Amino acid sequence: MPAAALGFALGARDGAARRGRIELGRGTIETPAFMPIGTAATVKAMQPEEVAATGAEILLANTYHLMLRPGAERIAALGGLHRFMNWQRPILTDSGGFQVMSLAKLRKIAEAGVSFRSHLDGAKYELTPERSIEIQDLLGADITMVLDECTPFPATEAEAQASMERSMRWAARSKAAYRTRPGHALFGIVQGSVYPALRKRSAKELCAIGFDGYAVGGMAVGEGQASMFALLEETVPALPEERPRYLMGVGKPEDILGAVARGIDMFDCVLPTRSGRTAQAFTRRGTVNLKNARHLDDPRPLDEACACAACQHYSRAYLHHLVRAGEILASMLLTQHNLRYYQDLMRGMRDAIPAQGFSDHARALRHGWAAGDIAPL
Amino acid sequence: MPAAALGFALGARDGAARRGRIELGRGTIETPAFMPIGTAATVKAMQPEEVAATGAEILLANTYHLMLRPGAERIAALGGLHRFMNWQRPILTDSGGFQVMSLAKLRKIAEAGVSFRSHLDGAKYELTPERSIEIQDLLGADITMVLDECTPFPATEAEAQASMERSMRWAARSKAAYRTRPGHALFGIVQGSVYPALRKRSAKELCAIGFDGYAVGGMAVGEGQASMFALLEETVPALPEERPRYLMGVGKPEDILGAVARGIDMFDCVLPTRSGRTAQAFTRRGTVNLKNARHLDDPRPLDEACACAACQHYSRAYLHHLVRAGEILASMLLTQHNLRYYQDLMRGMRDAIPAQGFSDHARALRHGWAAGDIAPL
Repeated sequence: MPAAALGFALGARDGAARRGRIELGRGTIETPAFMPIGTAATVKAMQPEEVAATGAEILLANTYHLMLRPGAERIAALGGLHRFMNWQRPILTDSGGFQVMSLAKLRKIAEAGVSFRSHLDGAKYELTPERSIEIQDLLGADITMVLDECTPFPATEAEAQASMERSMRWAARSKAAYRTRPGHALFGIVQGSVYPALRKRSAKELCAIGFDGYAVGGMAVGEGQASMFALLEETVPALPEERPRYLMGVGKPEDILGAVARGIDMFDCVLPTRSGRTAQAFTRRGTVNLKNARHLDDPRPLDEACACAACQHYSRAYLHHLVRAGEILASMLLTQHNLRYYQDLMRGMRDAIPAQGFSDHARALRHGWAAGDIAPL
Repeated sequence: MPAAALGFALGARDGAARRGRIELGRGTIETPAFMPIGTAATVKAMQPEEVAATGAEILLANTYHLMLRPGAERIAALGGLHRFMNWQRPILTDSGGFQVMSLAKLRKIAEAGVSFRSHLDGAKYELTPERSIEIQDLLGADITMVLDECTPFPATEAEAQASMERSMRWAARSKAAYRTRPGHALFGIVQGSVYPALRKRSAKELCAIGFDGYAVGGMAVGEGQASMFALLEETVPALPEERPRYLMGVGKPEDILGAVARGIDMFDCVLPTRSGRTAQAFTRRGTVNLKNARHLDDPRPLDEACACAACQHYSRAYLHHLVRAGEILASMLLTQHNLRYYQDLMRGMRDAIPAQGFSDHARALRHGWAAGDIAPL
């Protein structure tokens, strides 16, 4: 039985793609939506007003990083994460589970939870479903995620089943620990590795517990795009129509496009921000590497159709110069551009769905990406 | 005979301190003025509109860095430095001489000029007075500096004299090579190390050549503040009243305060920008190190009287967190703050001079700096 603390208005559909609107106490999120990553209470190389200017309506912050530094209780004492980082719109916090598995040292997983040592200073921590929910509450999360066990990839079906079943028990404990508040939401997370039957069982069990939204976790971990799309086709129909669906940690523009076509509403990924710090730009003509010497004398903007500061005020020659000189402004401008590109990508899909033009729009996007930015379109 | 391509209106005086206004084709500069450093065609960690928002009316860009990368001819082909870096207000370029001495490898100084190898890739370059002027013209400098020989410190009087005399010959060659344009200016540079007689001779020789403005170079190289102030007291009266005076590479707030009191109109220094990237903030209560653990739980702004983004929207606890986490946003916010502090410092002096309150103002500033920001004022 869904808790329905979060409003979700479903609009037009085009095939399985859906246009929707999530209503939270701190603001509205038009879906399909992309959430920039603000790992350590900052979207790297961006001021929050610049993040908002790209069109972002919600951020993701990482529980693992914030519980270690500066600490959840400290952020709570300082007025919560929104005030701490000067972002007044909604924030989704992950549960911490994924980073514990990828970053922490000496992890030990048991039924109660995970114990581990900080990758920063070796200090010992415990993360249980109850503590994860408590931390997210201390941070002031608008959307809270259940703690799940991140199934390693690859995993045998038996391993994946045992891991998924533990995640379902943790999901129930997370729900029990969660303090329902109007305008806030708790999302469950589907696990089950690459096994459709497990994914469906996981979805069914989560629905029985009842969440405000449903995430698909453990994807884009090495299974490949075709496999991910096939799994989504099996999993998404097992999720309730009337609740938002969130594909965690995905992805490249073409991954997002394919996942929206399969009924996903929300995304997060480090790609636009991380790439912005390594001279990779996402454009209508595919990714562009600003390190490349072909930009040395190029007076053209990175993408003449883009309204971001990097494209409005600077040449490729200048961006290339900043990258070569190792200037912070390169990271600032390219992160702005990439986040803007991702938000424009989502906006384009949101416009195409009510016009029943999603397939044509997707074809045009793929055509541009494949063309590259050297030869004329 | 001054070229007078640059307008300089002298306003009120208070003791030796002067209020003035420099008119260039690209804009007006209220003096006393501070010029932020945009070494490699970017004020590090700042977007140009943010630099302007701090109150800066002119930037300094480094000829040495730009001639090596991306190259002066390339910048000219791309429309000049203003367009390249998206800064439409005036730019002062240095001559390159100072960085050749401090950064380049295998330098060889001769009467013709300096030959050296790039610190970036070992490529061979020559910098003569004529080439320095040509590069600054290619960049599109609003204020061009003559090439001078940076006298090492310490130097004997004989060494300082020989070096100063070469600088004067180079100043004459620079003037001859300079292409006079309305709304643009050429500045000479006084040398002579710590020897007042040499400084006075240098000033006199420059005046005989005739420049739009006069800089004092080779200061703050290790001679100490008292010695610098004493030298300024000997040198400044030898410069023409009706032309702007620029103390190169200075300095700390207390250096600037003392130099304005001795009749200097213009300053540049890396301190506010460099310190912004190493967690040092300039405030009314002296410098504050944001690395310090005393800020860990401090909800107060860095400086409650400051209008910059860092002080308006964030706590010391947050700034400390960003610094500890090595986040780019720390550099961005602290650079904004420091540049704003320097501009506010100049504005305060500009206001105090017409009110005949410079001494009281200086006393109040020094009192605040000395008090520190822990005990109440």
